[in-house]
Amino acid sequence: MTANKVNVCVLGASGYTGSDFIRLAARHQNINFAALTAHTHAGKKVAEVFPHLATLDLPKLTTVDDVDWSDIDVVVCGLPHGTTQEIIASLPKDIKIADMSADFRLRDAKTYEDTYGKPHQALELQKKAAYGLTELNRDEIRNTRLVACPGCFPTAVLLTLFPLLAGKHIGPNDLIIDAKSGLTGAGRGLKQNTLFSEAGEGLSPYGVGTHRHAPEIDQELTKAFGDSVVVNFTPHLVPMSRGELVTCHVKLCDNNTVVDVREALSAHYASEPFVRVLAEGAMLATQNVRGSNHCQIGVFADRIPGRAIVIGTIDNLVKGSAGQALQNLNLMCGFAETQGLEQLPMFP
Amino acid sequence: MTANKVNVCVLGASGYTGSDFIRLAARHQNINFAALTAHTHAGKKVAEVFPHLATLDLPKLTTVDDVDWSDIDVVVCGLPHGTTQEIIASLPKDIKIADMSADFRLRDAKTYEDTYGKPHQALELQKKAAYGLTELNRDEIRNTRLVACPGCFPTAVLLTLFPLLAGKHIGPNDLIIDAKSGLTGAGRGLKQNTLFSEAGEGLSPYGVGTHRHAPEIDQELTKAFGDSVVVNFTPHLVPMSRGELVTCHVKLCDNNTVVDVREALSAHYASEPFVRVLAEGAMLATQNVRGSNHCQIGVFADRIPGRAIVIGTIDNLVKGSAGQALQNLNLMCGFAETQGLEQLPMFP
Amino acid sequence: MTANKVNVCVLGASGYTGSDFIRLAARHQNINFAALTAHTHAGKKVAEVFPHLATLDLPKLTTVDDVDWSDIDVVVCGLPHGTTQEIIASLPKDIKIADMSADFRLRDAKTYEDTYGKPHQALELQKKAAYGLTELNRDEIRNTRLVACPGCFPTAVLLTLFPLLAGKHIGPNDLIIDAKSGLTGAGRGLKQNTLFSEAGEGLSPYGVGTHRHAPEIDQELTKAFGDSVVVNFTPHLVPMSRGELVTCHVKLCDNNTVVDVREALSAHYASEPFVRVLAEGAMLATQNVRGSNHCQIGVFADRIPGRAIVIGTIDNLVKGSAGQALQNLNLMCGFAETQGLEQLPMFP
Amino acid sequence: MTANKVNVCVLGASGYTGSDFIRLAARHQNINFAALTAHTHAGKKVAEVFPHLATLDLPKLTTVDDVDWSDIDVVVCGLPHGTTQEIIASLPKDIKIADMSADFRLRDAKTYEDTYGKPHQALELQKKAAYGLTELNRDEIRNTRLVACPGCFPTAVLLTLFPLLAGKHIGPNDLIIDAKSGLTGAGRGLKQNTLFSEAGEGLSPYGVGTHRHAPEIDQELTKAFGDSVVVNFTPHLVPMSRGELVTCHVKLCDNNTVVDVREALSAHYASEPFVRVLAEGAMLATQNVRGSNHCQIGVFADRIPGRAIVIGTIDNLVKGSAGQALQNLNLMCGFAETQGLEQLPMFP
Repeated sequence: MTANKVNVCVLGASGYTGSDFIRLAARHQNINFAALTAHTHAGKKVAEVFPHLATLDLPKLTTVDDVDWSDIDVVVCGLPHGTTQEIIASLPKDIKIADMSADFRLRDAKTYEDTYGKPHQALELQKKAAYGLTELNRDEIRNTRLVACPGCFPTAVLLTLFPLLAGKHIGPNDLIIDAKSGLTGAGRGLKQNTLFSEAGEGLSPYGVGTHRHAPEIDQELTKAFGDSVVVNFTPHLVPMSRGELVTCHVKLCDNNTVVDVREALSAHYASEPFVRVLAEGAMLATQNVRGSNHCQIGVFADRIPGRAIVIGTIDNLVKGSAGQALQNLNLMCGFAETQGLEQLPMFP
Repeated sequence: MTANKVNVCVLGASGYTGSDFIRLAARHQNINFAALTAHTHAGKKVAEVFPHLATLDLPKLTTVDDVDWSDIDVVVCGLPHGTTQEIIASLPKDIKIADMSADFRLRDAKTYEDTYGKPHQALELQKKAAYGLTELNRDEIRNTRLVACPGCFPTAVLLTLFPLLAGKHIGPNDLIIDAKSGLTGAGRGLKQNTLFSEAGEGLSPYGVGTHRHAPEIDQELTKAFGDSVVVNFTPHLVPMSRGELVTCHVKLCDNNTVVDVREALSAHYASEPFVRVLAEGAMLATQNVRGSNHCQIGVFADRIPGRAIVIGTIDNLVKGSAGQALQNLNLMCGFAETQGLEQLPMFP
Repeated sequence: MTANKVNVCVLGASGYTGSDFIRLAARHQNINFAALTAHTHAGKKVAEVFPHLATLDLPKLTTVDDVDWSDIDVVVCGLPHGTTQEIIASLPKDIKIADMSADFRLRDAKTYEDTYGKPHQALELQKKAAYGLTELNRDEIRNTRLVACPGCFPTAVLLTLFPLLAGKHIGPNDLIIDAKSGLTGAGRGLKQNTLFSEAGEGLSPYGVGTHRHAPEIDQELTKAFGDSVVVNFTPHLVPMSRGELVTCHVKLCDNNTVVDVREALSAHYASEPFVRVLAEGAMLATQNVRGSNHCQIGVFADRIPGRAIVIGTIDNLVKGSAGQALQNLNLMCGFAETQGLEQLPMFP
Repeated sequence: MTANKVNVCVLGASGYTGSDFIRLAARHQNINFAALTAHTHAGKKVAEVFPHLATLDLPKLTTVDDVDWSDIDVVVCGLPHGTTQEIIASLPKDIKIADMSADFRLRDAKTYEDTYGKPHQALELQKKAAYGLTELNRDEIRNTRLVACPGCFPTAVLLTLFPLLAGKHIGPNDLIIDAKSGLTGAGRGLKQNTLFSEAGEGLSPYGVGTHRHAPEIDQELTKAFGDSVVVNFTPHLVPMSRGELVTCHVKLCDNNTVVDVREALSAHYASEPFVRVLAEGAMLATQNVRGSNHCQIGVFADRIPGRAIVIGTIDNLVKGSAGQALQNLNLMCGFAETQGLEQLPMFP
């Protein structure tokens, strides 16, 4: 920590969440990039891997082993899930961590193993991690050392549904979450179905009933409702780079109306800088939040009586990952929560 | 009718459904283009309006008034809804009609008026129209003079759900139809939200709870089930030109399983040339039917017990409009049903 | 002017250049939006026309007639060409103007009339306007009241070629400028060929030999070289929203090599915050400047001896329009030149 | 050869050119698919690798070693360059070959080695190969056993420029070929820069001055002109799947005008089924040939006196590869040249 700046190390700086964290935090007054790691690109300049960041004065990419931890105040981790646990477990205990991977999101060891296919390697640490959905968990985040930033889909779903289930405006049954994501949600790995020629000009469902974000959504909605919730979660791949939209088909509780639901959400988020509940008649679009930490939520009448449609949208790389990580880092370090996140959406 | 050819007039040849009908029917052995109308482009060559059709030898575009009806055997109508009724009512009675507009799809006069905002102008004709979902209504189509080709979304939804509701494999309650369409579904009219710069790189819901295809879906699913069905219908605009995918979240009846549902659909469509039910584990994509008259359907387990996810995909301009019109024309004229529809999907 | 803030009026705030100016200037410490005009949308909130700006606290849209000019320090004009001259001519003389339209770019009255199809209405003002290519004309811009911001293509071309022609590194003959632009370059007007379904998945040349930016390029390159220059200018429409890339095929002077050309450009732009000359072997992409005020230039060997290929890329809405307008406003008002322009490129 | 059908083996059926050959030839009356090879997918059904072809009745994918050559009349080869030579050299001598790879295109052994980085392995065969640009070389193709189908860019360039150079309408100096291609031109291999998230919404030059198609263009244009021609060849990657457009900036010979050039091309291609020279004022677009074997050429005045701009466009996978291979196969086998190639362009 030099003067008012914290020294940050980004693990996995050659991925999309890592680079988007750099894009945002580069304009933060109190962040100094002290180390950036990228296993296969170690030794290169960031500009070689991400030419759009070439104007920044950044340290070269290194391996994790080459980081001088005595110099680091905060680690932001953008590594793939399953690779992070031992690294984080081995860090000096005075380093704060904002983890963008999936490794510390699930509370239940068995659920983790079932979902990610191998036993968790840092169970003690997992218990101490705060779930980093900022708007729902500020106090815990402020006082933790390790924040497990939510998955991109869970972020959109929980911002949209958590207050409604907690407030008993909607019920826990037949919760249908029809989700749509741009291609960056699939990461920077090389897969045939994410090639431009194959993903372009087309839409496809994927991971229907089996997507790894579903147990995470169940876990948090169960917490909201106070009793077990199991959701339908049906993601689709959309031919766009950024953006996520979750169309939640819900049952209204008792005498709740669409207007009640909208008002409950509006009241809940009235003082939030990044969440905005749309007025009746306004329409959502992922374009309206692109590149920003914003979340927009709309509430719509269903043709089926007793039901409603609640739709949320975020930029999966920002509020769904790097932006939320920065928001949490701000809380952990005592900075203004919106610092570095003033970026407006880019349209067109 | 010359030799084995029917003389076809396309009304509205400067729109997307009109031009795609020309693209397909140009390779049909028994079709002769006798007249092509396009109000604002009358007098032009087709090549000026659609340069991709420049290699065809086609008549010039004319107004409707300039068509010599004595020369016409079949009218294919691609005009906007609400403009077609009087024209069709005034045609010589020996002309067959395949109407791609919405004007003769709804049986109930009041539903039509509520949905399209003005009273129907040809109620007598409406009663005689056959609903042109070919796979479900062949006999009636063969013997009618006027086919009302279904909307693109209803085509995808009904192919996916009609046999399941009729066979009591799924129930009529809480039918959630989360639908996605490419931009050609919005037609060739000039709207700001369909500009490349605005529609690209983003996804947006539209017409939530109010889309005009919903009453049409209700009407036909009610017929399938034998009692009133009201669906949730939630369409989204996807940044691609062609393609439509409907994600139907359904409740299983009694002891039905996902396997039962898949087998029922497979059996039902076993001999259909254009409908294909995917094996377990195979995934759908609009890319796999692009440009063709094909429909693909997949059945997936839901995480919520007692529910399933049934997904259908078509090319909205082909099976969802011009292709189905040609399929119906083939039935009405006694040609082989697949003639002119052998076009394979184009991927990438 | 209140405290350290200037009161800015944006004319044409419902267009893309107007809204992108708002996006950038919203983060400027010394700018207050005092008035925003939009003829057909007068009376609406900005959020209705541009939902992505909904989080800003902005004045409502008004007509030009309803602006209280006594309150305005600077006008930023994003109106279509040909509509701006009389409005600007009628403004109080103490108001500074950054004009993003084409109306004050051409020095020669006859060239203006030939290019834009009608006589110029404010010839006196035209003579006083500074040509607003910031990097080439800082002193004049600092001391003028009216800046004519260059067209998007001229900005990219002049940044790439002006120093090379001025320095006699390349010759004035056979200058081939093969240009490519995203769809926002065509503005927000409704045209069939800019619909998503028509512009997507395809590339087309347009305005070959006749594009209105060509005389502007000639004018400035003639200034650079000191003698008449006439260029080949061949633009193409690319299926992307933002971004412009100009591939300039040039003849080397005398003993100049590709290395000489690269070094000349590097030296020329060494201290520029927004222009970056790439090292040998690095490749340009519009993605690397998207959303930012950056310009990247690369120099490549031609297979034909004595020639070279010099390529420049910018974001047409930022450095090509709104960003450059803000850069010029900063100069005119004595603010730090980079204020409000710290926005990094967004990739992916 | 059974009845009127030839037995075809497609080598490399899991690539884009292989699958597009299948798409086209599936509608050919005289072709029977006897064997399909795909090294890493051997044992799978084609439908698993290309679901859009699932409706066809095709043999399973095999290795090359498992093909029974006694059963094969024609081999269509879609393998990567450098892997094909030994395979083709070892085939029974009565098998005809249409090779879509680069392996037999270059006449000069040293140029091949310089361009592709290793010595040619079948020099004898290379000498006997006919260069398969159908419109320019029909007689040789009809009488050969082995056709080397041209690269996609050379196809577009040569159709556009060959008759003009041969007829001395344009000169050989300062030939600038600014080329643009969709992403399928980069093949189905996994590369980071061809991911949707990286290639989308952006344009980038690549292989400037070094692209492997340049020596092939030189070779053929030298043949056309009768003396050495060296071109500038500058390709760009465009965010679309299919389509190629070459903007050729040329010098007019002597008294030739733009009208002369257009008329010379029109006359040359007057009886060609797939090449169309546009009238003055008409504009090209890759969309207008998408999915078809068509080529469109336009001629435009340059602002620089004595120069012209000649632009050609094709679908790189069809006329640029699989379609031209089928066209050549038709010639070699004595079928109607247009069989299987009646596919109209698909727009939108």
